[in-house]
Amino acid sequence: MTDTLSPTPRTTVVRGRSRARTDRAELHALLADALVAHLGVDVGDHPLVLPVAFAVDLDGPDDGGSLYIHGSVAARWLTASARRTVCVTVTELDGLVEARSAFHHSMNYRSAVVIGEARLVADPDERARALALTVDHMIPGRSATLRPSTRKELAATAILAVPLREASMKVRSGGPVDEPADVDAEVWAGVVPVRRVAEPPVTSPDAAAEVPDDVARQAARLGARPVDPHEGVRSPV
Amino acid sequence: MTDTLSPTPRTTVVRGRSRARTDRAELHALLADALVAHLGVDVGDHPLVLPVAFAVDLDGPDDGGSLYIHGSVAARWLTASARRTVCVTVTELDGLVEARSAFHHSMNYRSAVVIGEARLVADPDERARALALTVDHMIPGRSATLRPSTRKELAATAILAVPLREASMKVRSGGPVDEPADVDAEVWAGVVPVRRVAEPPVTSPDAAAEVPDDVARQAARLGARPVDPHEGVRSPV
Repeated sequence: MTDTLSPTPRTTVVRGRSRARTDRAELHALLADALVAHLGVDVGDHPLVLPVAFAVDLDGPDDGGSLYIHGSVAARWLTASARRTVCVTVTELDGLVEARSAFHHSMNYRSAVVIGEARLVADPDERARALALTVDHMIPGRSATLRPSTRKELAATAILAVPLREASMKVRSGGPVDEPADVDAEVWAGVVPVRRVAEPPVTSPDAAAEVPDDVARQAARLGARPVDPHEGVRSPV
Repeated sequence: MTDTLSPTPRTTVVRGRSRARTDRAELHALLADALVAHLGVDVGDHPLVLPVAFAVDLDGPDDGGSLYIHGSVAARWLTASARRTVCVTVTELDGLVEARSAFHHSMNYRSAVVIGEARLVADPDERARALALTVDHMIPGRSATLRPSTRKELAATAILAVPLREASMKVRSGGPVDEPADVDAEVWAGVVPVRRVAEPPVTSPDAAAEVPDDVARQAARLGARPVDPHEGVRSPV
């Protein structure tokens, strides 16, 4: 495994090559940033695309590392994905690009497309690790503060692993690129930057008020204003 | 067309029925809120999921209204979608739900899945309207401030329409739902609310500085602090 994205034909960026990224570290950074992925599964006569939480284990057993998706064992889409080629796409929107012409309107974004054969994870240790990583993907460090999953909970949970080997990534950043003839037009051009932020954590009414460090840290990382840990916002949520 | 989502078997929510929404107005509100959709296309031996800008015309010619996606005529995925059943999924993340157990961790979100046969839009008037709606989806009112697209620009652009009739929607909101036995555990529980915000518009260095009302309004709607229109942030973007 090299540290560059070495796409196969099906993950080679054809259109907009200038936006293609080939550094595997950029893929890993995007996956670390994103909270939701979109999983595409072929369910017979059409594709189905569903939003999913996910986790990444770069040292996982799959080629290029493992991307984990979990769900109920009763979810048809999840069991339908096993041993099938699926597509997992992760997108972060960074801005609205307002050009002088409709044609050159665009968006700033980072997006990765991972294509691979999904594997139903069977090994108990790998399953436990994947679930812990999924919690920690939302709030780094939180899984260590929780009780172990029960046998019943584990039996109700299916976990898919998708290899990160076959991936492509595109990034657009910067301002609009206008036709030279349009630049002097009396039309504003620029970017409306967009980002995801967290608000201060909202403590459940039946929970102790003290927001733990891991939750406060993650909320701050996502841009919430810092909270006094003794002053969690308490409201029915 | 009734005003409820009347899903076919392939858009019937099977898992997590309590999260299913059946009011078509909620679908329309989510589509109005979201800036990016994920389009799933079958490209032979696997599905491909790509992030796309989109627009909605509830009075469009397709059953339930039309969802429009555009791209380069040279984009293989786009022409591969025509007359094929595609899936368009729109997701907005609203929060990280931190339960006492890993099992009950969740996310608050609004998500819609639209399945339908994609139609390549040929009518010049409908094409012009779809492109204007796409610009206006980013910045309401902006298309009227731009010059018309040129013949060359139009020839380079393909537009797909997907009927909004077959759609399902799921919403999760509120705090974690824990096992009764876990409620007294010494573990914090609550929600980290998450939302998308805009930052003040960044004017291109070669553009007039005055941020127009439509752009300022949209940035404000997306949560940017209000900008003095005579004081656009100017920096190389």
